[in-house]
Amino acid sequence: MPVTFAERTELLKASEIREILKITQRPEVISFAGGLPAPELFPVEEMKDIAVKVLEESGSQALQYSTTEGFDPLRQQIAVRMNAKFKTDVGATNILITCGSQQALDFSGKLFLNPGDVVLCESPTYLAAISAFKAYQPRFVEVPTDDNGMIIPELEKILQTNENIKLIYLIPDFQNPTGRTWSLERRQQFIQLINRYEIPAIEDNPYGELRFEGEILPAIKSMDTKDLVIFVSTFSKTFCPGLRIGWVAAGARFIEKYILIKQGADLHTSSISQRIISRYMEIYDFEAHIKSITDVYRRRRDAMIHTMQENFAGDVRFTRPQGGLFTWVKMPPYIKAVELLKQCLRQEVAFVPGDSFFPNGQVENTFRLNYSNMPEERIAEGIKRLAAVMRKY
Amino acid sequence: MPVTFAERTELLKASEIREILKITQRPEVISFAGGLPAPELFPVEEMKDIAVKVLEESGSQALQYSTTEGFDPLRQQIAVRMNAKFKTDVGATNILITCGSQQALDFSGKLFLNPGDVVLCESPTYLAAISAFKAYQPRFVEVPTDDNGMIIPELEKILQTNENIKLIYLIPDFQNPTGRTWSLERRQQFIQLINRYEIPAIEDNPYGELRFEGEILPAIKSMDTKDLVIFVSTFSKTFCPGLRIGWVAAGARFIEKYILIKQGADLHTSSISQRIISRYMEIYDFEAHIKSITDVYRRRRDAMIHTMQENFAGDVRFTRPQGGLFTWVKMPPYIKAVELLKQCLRQEVAFVPGDSFFPNGQVENTFRLNYSNMPEERIAEGIKRLAAVMRKY
Repeated sequence: MPVTFAERTELLKASEIREILKITQRPEVISFAGGLPAPELFPVEEMKDIAVKVLEESGSQALQYSTTEGFDPLRQQIAVRMNAKFKTDVGATNILITCGSQQALDFSGKLFLNPGDVVLCESPTYLAAISAFKAYQPRFVEVPTDDNGMIIPELEKILQTNENIKLIYLIPDFQNPTGRTWSLERRQQFIQLINRYEIPAIEDNPYGELRFEGEILPAIKSMDTKDLVIFVSTFSKTFCPGLRIGWVAAGARFIEKYILIKQGADLHTSSISQRIISRYMEIYDFEAHIKSITDVYRRRRDAMIHTMQENFAGDVRFTRPQGGLFTWVKMPPYIKAVELLKQCLRQEVAFVPGDSFFPNGQVENTFRLNYSNMPEERIAEGIKRLAAVMRKY
Repeated sequence: MPVTFAERTELLKASEIREILKITQRPEVISFAGGLPAPELFPVEEMKDIAVKVLEESGSQALQYSTTEGFDPLRQQIAVRMNAKFKTDVGATNILITCGSQQALDFSGKLFLNPGDVVLCESPTYLAAISAFKAYQPRFVEVPTDDNGMIIPELEKILQTNENIKLIYLIPDFQNPTGRTWSLERRQQFIQLINRYEIPAIEDNPYGELRFEGEILPAIKSMDTKDLVIFVSTFSKTFCPGLRIGWVAAGARFIEKYILIKQGADLHTSSISQRIISRYMEIYDFEAHIKSITDVYRRRRDAMIHTMQENFAGDVRFTRPQGGLFTWVKMPPYIKAVELLKQCLRQEVAFVPGDSFFPNGQVENTFRLNYSNMPEERIAEGIKRLAAVMRKY
């Protein structure tokens, strides 16, 4: 009798692109492929101070088992910040601390999806959300998008014509991969529509606080009159991903179930990491830290956009994000991004072909660029190399 | 259209016992209910030193995203220690770092179980493993056990008469909840049997290094000639649970799949926690630290066993564990542990009724006692109170 695996594992495979991109770990490669924050902005000195403080003040608790929900003062701080920044109205009891926001996505699949159920998502959407949900064997239906978010009449048509839609997944602020942000009007139309169909929506917002210009828009969660929106975020982009601290914010009927799932999945998130972030926010100026990050990323975005404007052909389109980490490039249909990547790797420049961001595939002439992880000169040099390769087509 | 949840969530409920036990958080209650390590043994001073060192030496990497598999030096250290202590033959590439061993159990369910599949486990078994697997909707078949482990002819009968057995779960060293350890002979018989049936086995070993007397027995993984055994462990009992660092050790065909599951589930385990443990083991004497824990727990076990011998009636049986954190009490059939608990709580003493450790329930006259988390005098006082309540029956 041979060993067999669960059916859900049939969809588990190492991504071909990930294999190709392994070579981008060589330092000479200019890689726009990752989504890494700039490590030189991590508050390493402050962290040394805080780690010692936390261990001195509460070593026994920081190193002991703790509650599944998370460290209460941190839950409270998150609720207060969310309400101030995104106009939501949540309290500490609405928050579950997770191991990064990726875990919140996995739990969302676990909570809502039977095999064959339908997940709606933006087209394109975040590739690791696709992986997280895939473990629960759903069918993905992609909702067409424009510069203002999901196209609402298209969404409505999909809601009318598909059965077993259990979840809508969206990233309204500086979306991964496109860098686009939903307009206020689109947010309001969206909530009206899901209120009518009563479909839960995951509002994934890892980048919203990294805004380079203009005002932060209210979260869709802030307009949520029927407790259908589950807000997911993380400290990975505003602080440090290595601590693995994210969260889910949702009404009681959902958050109680997320907590039970967390209990079975890993008991709780690192007590010491939670206390470090919490104490950091008490002692240091977290808003000033976020401002220092956005100042740097704004300059990097400017360098990337400027170099693309100067060097890309007129029929190559790209987004101009107002925040976040990514821009999105659309080439004429005859250029295949995977082929382009292979050529670019010879010139030691890398990116992620757009195909991976469409759960049902088949869009081959797009790619994602990250600008948060390297200085402007290197960005300019990389874009020039990329443009030179593209010009050969 | 009302919101619906996945079928698997029907099995998710807050445990009634957990609710009862919430009152045990009051400091005046003598609680034998938890499974907490003694916090006074956490190396808080050393941790302060190490946290600063890690941030100084490698702050940018410790706070950045890192690989899903885990921090390579730590994987290597774990492999070397496992091989030395448990006679296994694993390398760094066989190791995946997880968020506590609980996550390794959750992933095991995710990897192997379709709804309706059968999981075999010791009767009784670890209650949080039951919760982890339940999310994947299996049927549990309990294998009868004695003081030497699973009773092999009973296991064979079950293997012969059940279909769709996908996984065998066992804790051979100082089992939770019974504190019992499988004999060497039983381990050998077990591996011969599963080799014949080719069923994967999860060998969960969180307590094996906490041995009070005698020699550590070879892990079942060390006898694994067909790569069927998946060894799971953690630093939660030998170091600090608050860091949430556990691991899976398995052959290539399994570990590759665990890594893909981890990637979708939460990307990776806290980089800084991994580096802290790794650096601690480089600089400090980890074996001496473990010895200091076992010395303390041995005295606590002695106090508990001694007080039970003096105060429990002759028809109450209990195990005498050679290591680990727990002992297991069996009362005459007419005493129900849940009723006893309610009476005991009035005397401010608590434990976990055994019912929760039988996935199919119906064993009502047993309970689990933890002795790691309080000094001897308090253990003696609690056991005396418990004995006084029991005598009323």
